[in-house]
Amino acid sequence: MPRVSLSELRDEFRRVLLGAGLAEERAELVARLFAENQRDGVASHGLNRFPGLVAGLRSGDLEPGANPTKVGGLGALEQWDGGMGVGPWNAHYGMGRAIELAREHGLGCVGLRNTNHWMRGGTYGLQAADAGCIGICWTNTIPLMPPWGSAEAKIGNNPLVIAVPGPDGPLLLDMAMSQYSNGKLEILRQQGKSLPIAGGFDREGNLTTDPAAILASRRALPIGYWKGSALAMMLDTVPALVSGGQTSHEIGRQGKERAVSQVFLAIDVTALRGETGLNATVAAFVADLHTAQPLSPDEPVRYPGEGMLQRRQESGRNGVWVDEKQWAALRAM
Amino acid sequence: MPRVSLSELRDEFRRVLLGAGLAEERAELVARLFAENQRDGVASHGLNRFPGLVAGLRSGDLEPGANPTKVGGLGALEQWDGGMGVGPWNAHYGMGRAIELAREHGLGCVGLRNTNHWMRGGTYGLQAADAGCIGICWTNTIPLMPPWGSAEAKIGNNPLVIAVPGPDGPLLLDMAMSQYSNGKLEILRQQGKSLPIAGGFDREGNLTTDPAAILASRRALPIGYWKGSALAMMLDTVPALVSGGQTSHEIGRQGKERAVSQVFLAIDVTALRGETGLNATVAAFVADLHTAQPLSPDEPVRYPGEGMLQRRQESGRNGVWVDEKQWAALRAM
Repeated sequence: MPRVSLSELRDEFRRVLLGAGLAEERAELVARLFAENQRDGVASHGLNRFPGLVAGLRSGDLEPGANPTKVGGLGALEQWDGGMGVGPWNAHYGMGRAIELAREHGLGCVGLRNTNHWMRGGTYGLQAADAGCIGICWTNTIPLMPPWGSAEAKIGNNPLVIAVPGPDGPLLLDMAMSQYSNGKLEILRQQGKSLPIAGGFDREGNLTTDPAAILASRRALPIGYWKGSALAMMLDTVPALVSGGQTSHEIGRQGKERAVSQVFLAIDVTALRGETGLNATVAAFVADLHTAQPLSPDEPVRYPGEGMLQRRQESGRNGVWVDEKQWAALRAM
Repeated sequence: MPRVSLSELRDEFRRVLLGAGLAEERAELVARLFAENQRDGVASHGLNRFPGLVAGLRSGDLEPGANPTKVGGLGALEQWDGGMGVGPWNAHYGMGRAIELAREHGLGCVGLRNTNHWMRGGTYGLQAADAGCIGICWTNTIPLMPPWGSAEAKIGNNPLVIAVPGPDGPLLLDMAMSQYSNGKLEILRQQGKSLPIAGGFDREGNLTTDPAAILASRRALPIGYWKGSALAMMLDTVPALVSGGQTSHEIGRQGKERAVSQVFLAIDVTALRGETGLNATVAAFVADLHTAQPLSPDEPVRYPGEGMLQRRQESGRNGVWVDEKQWAALRAM
């Protein structure tokens, strides 16, 4: 399997983004984020997703030059409009602004409307943690799964990100409200594999581990059944309210996912607690977790983001893994 | 089944709390909260839990006169110590302070350490929504379930509350990270019933719907398997970090659940958006959800908290339902 350097990968992304009409500064940032996602083992939002973003730029769905503009605010709480710009550029701006507000007020919150897919949500949690802040952010999406008690896909999977800075790297949660992403279902379907646990319902309403049956029924399972369904609804309404933007049902009416609503929250926990106190709490938490006896000796119990950090280190040692075909396609773009 | 008036129920709770050493103002508040939980259909944190709180006061586990004291802060972010006081009193204070901060800064965040079981978390979400704020709060708990990949109960079920004010009452999510609470498992075990879906593992590590097997193994299932396990870990560390308090593993070392850590976040969305804009977004969300075709005609698709609001209205019409034995026991206390 081919390996490339992080800078080589970033430079290729950057070249293509410049060609698709992004100005220098934003091509640089967006390329770096895509390359870092690939480095961290999140190829789904690295090489996999990159052609989609470029297509959005070429079709005019994304406004290449748009910047978020402030439309309202009260102290530590601000409302911004993303102007239908490039999702990762806007989201990075949103969390950056929340961090600035946290420096001034202890915490800051930014609602961002009329923005587009932020690619890997974890990116913006890591951004906060790198700044010594707890970062909490989420986005709504187009309707992707049924609310509990119905078979109609009416709610988004609304990924939630929570990041905590720690002495050996951040704890990072980055999870959608569906048990499996559509991307994961699609990959397993192509491989002819079953899911390890039920991931949705078939057309007859039976829980199933068959990814093809779930893709056909559009009945992905929310995490925790009625619980994830309810959580997804709250994660839809809160960013819409704070940003003054759309909820999932309004996004769905557009026919494709655009003009989503996001919320970014940063808490300056390092200023509040001091780095020593912060690190001691996180280190003790991790040390205790690591005493848990694993069910399988090959699968140690891990904190959220631990596998990602290991993958990042491995990429640093051996280069960033790329799918050969995707890498060739990027170079040919 | 007996019905009592809300005021009658509150007065009984109040009488017992005064007898157990609570001063007038806090007996009044805690009695009101317990009575409202029962009215809202949350008997698990009404009559069910009340004797436990009184026992805590009598045993000295709870400091009846303690008030939260501010130990640190930065603008809209504050750190408070609960002084091992009465959980609902402290938590109500914590969200109240977060709302005050939100009035001043747009949003406010309070970390509260060395506090005790807050009973029904939804109480504090409703408190924020009644003040026109989005309320987000959660608590850590004693270890109650295994992290994903282990059979050792090392993580809390860490209930999460999100409330949004709306024109016909709030949207309210109040959910623990385990698929079923221990209380629910215990009730079904006593009734000899199975769970509708798998709620944990038996001692052999098989997923099971047998509540007795799950209580015996102490292997409750996190919502969404690995996802709820990871979310629970983040919900443990964040309040501990913001408050400077204990994480679940430290709480567990005490042998019983006390001195937990909580976080309260209020966002003054009414001031930001205006009541008209807020109500329009929530009403459109609810209207769309209600167009979802239910799988069963008897079970309409509901927004989070909708069933609770219906129960509240029904209690208003017919009186508050009480279990006959529990009501007699309260009157005899």
